[in-house]
Amino acid sequence: METPDHATDTPAEGPEATGIAAQDWATASAEPQYRAAVVDLLGALAYGELAAFERLAEDAKLAPTLGDKAELAKMAAAEFHHFERLTERLTAVDEEPTAAMEPFAKALDDFHRQTAPSDWLEGLVKAYVGDSIASDFYREVAARLDSDTRSLVLSVLDDTGHGNFAVEKVRAAIEADPRVGGRLALWARRLMGEALSQAQRVVADRDALSTMLVGGVADGFDLAEVGRMFSRITEAHTKRMAALGLAA
Amino acid sequence: METPDHATDTPAEGPEATGIAAQDWATASAEPQYRAAVVDLLGALAYGELAAFERLAEDAKLAPTLGDKAELAKMAAAEFHHFERLTERLTAVDEEPTAAMEPFAKALDDFHRQTAPSDWLEGLVKAYVGDSIASDFYREVAARLDSDTRSLVLSVLDDTGHGNFAVEKVRAAIEADPRVGGRLALWARRLMGEALSQAQRVVADRDALSTMLVGGVADGFDLAEVGRMFSRITEAHTKRMAALGLAA
Repeated sequence: METPDHATDTPAEGPEATGIAAQDWATASAEPQYRAAVVDLLGALAYGELAAFERLAEDAKLAPTLGDKAELAKMAAAEFHHFERLTERLTAVDEEPTAAMEPFAKALDDFHRQTAPSDWLEGLVKAYVGDSIASDFYREVAARLDSDTRSLVLSVLDDTGHGNFAVEKVRAAIEADPRVGGRLALWARRLMGEALSQAQRVVADRDALSTMLVGGVADGFDLAEVGRMFSRITEAHTKRMAALGLAA
Repeated sequence: METPDHATDTPAEGPEATGIAAQDWATASAEPQYRAAVVDLLGALAYGELAAFERLAEDAKLAPTLGDKAELAKMAAAEFHHFERLTERLTAVDEEPTAAMEPFAKALDDFHRQTAPSDWLEGLVKAYVGDSIASDFYREVAARLDSDTRSLVLSVLDDTGHGNFAVEKVRAAIEADPRVGGRLALWARRLMGEALSQAQRVVADRDALSTMLVGGVADGFDLAEVGRMFSRITEAHTKRMAALGLAA
């Protein structure tokens, strides 16, 4: 994702890879809690991609031109292929993808239901915000993962970046009518608020996943560190919105 | 597409390839009417794939399980990639994909609007019928095309065949409740009726395309031959429906 700012670098790629990050899946997954956390993570990401596919395909109907519709359909198809790669990995590690996804279905469905765009521009902002937050989250989490799972997550991440299309269209709309910016800024804040609220529900529900997100099983669970991760992602979001002309 | 019957063999692959079928695009497209017909064809197929993507993605929402939803989303993503290949070809021959698709948007949108499935099984039957008819039509038309365009059309065709998923699910539903069969048989007839009615509108509107469909520019326009092609496709459809337990 070529965004103005990344929420974090990818420390796992640096020299400091230690602990879980220095292990492969075969070694790391011998620890049942780590294994459960990764299955949770892959299930959550997979359902997230499937839900994103559905919403982008739905929002494509709001497109003012055929070319715009095709661009949103392209983003949707890309999300579907992420979904496929994530579920293939679940199957490869002998987990049933549906069972792994089910615990996250409600939070993601609720998020999308509560943030159904009312027009094309809201749909574009949502596509861009969603793509960017997903990208930031993938980067954050990659650092906590064994080398095999990290490769998968980073390869899915590499394939995103369709959001630039949305950026151009939104910028042009704000230039044409500056009042549009105020409305979309409010909308972007609502998106982020809903995303955080659903994410916090998931964190509260899924112990193994949350523990892993804050630094691996060995280091114990630290809710404050999850909070800091959310806060880094929110900051990156705010900077991106400002760059887009949507002052927070 | 592995269907019980193909509407026709692919004579262009046999020894009898002559006329346009024996030429490549560079040669064949020197004839302006042939070129216009192929641009029409690619535009119609491309919009058809994009519309199919949208409808399948929409129908995925009716899925009773996560696994079913993923299968329909997979079909939708496959349609999107057909769309991409067809529009890439249009661009490669210096045609604007949007301009090529526009003349066919209304007929295809009308078809989908008039055949919005009211439940999951109707959606599956529609996906299967649509996939099969598209496959039959691609085969019919391939025989009339220059070698380069034919390769493209056949390669898009090779990539279909997701309809078997729909077949299994529909068969199981009819076995579980035979009355479902009567309702779905009516539905399948309605789908075919609407498809033919929209196709005839397109044929009446687009001279170059229609002329090509009946055997190439040199042989002149013969509406009766278009009728025979539709009739072959309808017969194949009827046989497939019978095999599915949906007696016509």
